Amino acid sequence: MFFVFDGLDGVGKSTQQTLLTAWLEMQGARVVSCRDPGATPLGERLRSILLDKSDLEISPVSEMLLYMTARSQLVAETIRPAIESGAAVVCDRYLIANIAYQGYGAGVDIESIRQVGKVATDGVMPDATFLLDMPTKFALGRLHRTLDRVESRGEEYFDRVRQGFLTEAKKFDNVHVIDASRSVEQIQSDIRSIALAVMEKQA
Amino acid sequence: MFFVFDGLDGVGKSTQQTLLTAWLEMQGARVVSCRDPGATPLGERLRSILLDKSDLEISPVSEMLLYMTARSQLVAETIRPAIESGAAVVCDRYLIANIAYQGYGAGVDIESIRQVGKVATDGVMPDATFLLDMPTKFALGRLHRTLDRVESRGEEYFDRVRQGFLTEAKKFDNVHVIDASRSVEQIQSDIRSIALAVMEKQA
Repeated sequence: MFFVFDGLDGVGKSTQQTLLTAWLEMQGARVVSCRDPGATPLGERLRSILLDKSDLEISPVSEMLLYMTARSQLVAETIRPAIESGAAVVCDRYLIANIAYQGYGAGVDIESIRQVGKVATDGVMPDATFLLDMPTKFALGRLHRTLDRVESRGEEYFDRVRQGFLTEAKKFDNVHVIDASRSVEQIQSDIRSIALAVMEKQA
Repeated sequence: MFFVFDGLDGVGKSTQQTLLTAWLEMQGARVVSCRDPGATPLGERLRSILLDKSDLEISPVSEMLLYMTARSQLVAETIRPAIESGAAVVCDRYLIANIAYQGYGAGVDIESIRQVGKVATDGVMPDATFLLDMPTKFALGRLHRTLDRVESRGEEYFDRVRQGFLTEAKKFDNVHVIDASRSVEQIQSDIRSIALAVMEKQA
């Protein structure tokens, strides 16, 4: 099983990922929880380049490729071995984030992102993606910290990103839009129902 | 004009690139000389990850994507602006190196490399590639220094890489195999003839 949490920063992905991980473990699953980019030594090095608030020039296509590189290593080193060993994988972000941010947000050709994505993921795609959604203003307002390189872009950019996520969700049955403006418990309850349906289908 | 030097390490690319750059300048050209990966701040950071002889785990696909990321930034920041300003660009390595090393050498699907390459180069491809070729043993024997992460692979690997370069050269008219076991002057003379033909075609 492979579950992904995605959506704008500030929508509460980490809290929900922690709760789902705990619940899956209570169901008897062995869970590998990770984040993309990151989780591998190469991924963490690339993550620090990507999110470092420096004046390093990175074009939108290079940014997308940098995420893909980290993801490729994450699949090879962590996600694929975990799935093959029978563990459940829960990951903070995945390919859909590049489509929303660099594609819809920054104008990189979406078909190109999908093509590179096929190579980088080696076909390893989530059984379900939980797309936590709330109005852009609310999500941004919840970021009580110094913004990183990506977060410090304007609200218009994040509106395009949010619409991109929602457009992608309409295209794929296994991308579930979850109203993240509700209580933590209500959101988690929806997520567990979806996870349960995936587990029953795979049992 | 855009010229690329490629081939195994040890074949004498740097010497020939320096000589061609000087000659082009004597012909009145403004020359931007660069290396791939590298030349941009992002590229140099990625280069140090790629060639660092550490035990950082990097899969062949991730390695290919890391080169592509550096190349994408190099095209956006250096090569495309230089070509558009009328300068001649001379570059140490380019896409063909990924096809030879990660493709033929390490078994990454070659069509996938070409697809990602189209995205990373944004269609900016050399007018001529000088493929400096000599028997693998001779090239490796000329590396009088501590080998980096890639160089320290075995001779069989480099044989596959060399054959990959030669196979690619047969497919593309503008990839020129140059016998690099001759004198520096003889090699440079061949390179200048090819460069001259490109210049006359573009004049």
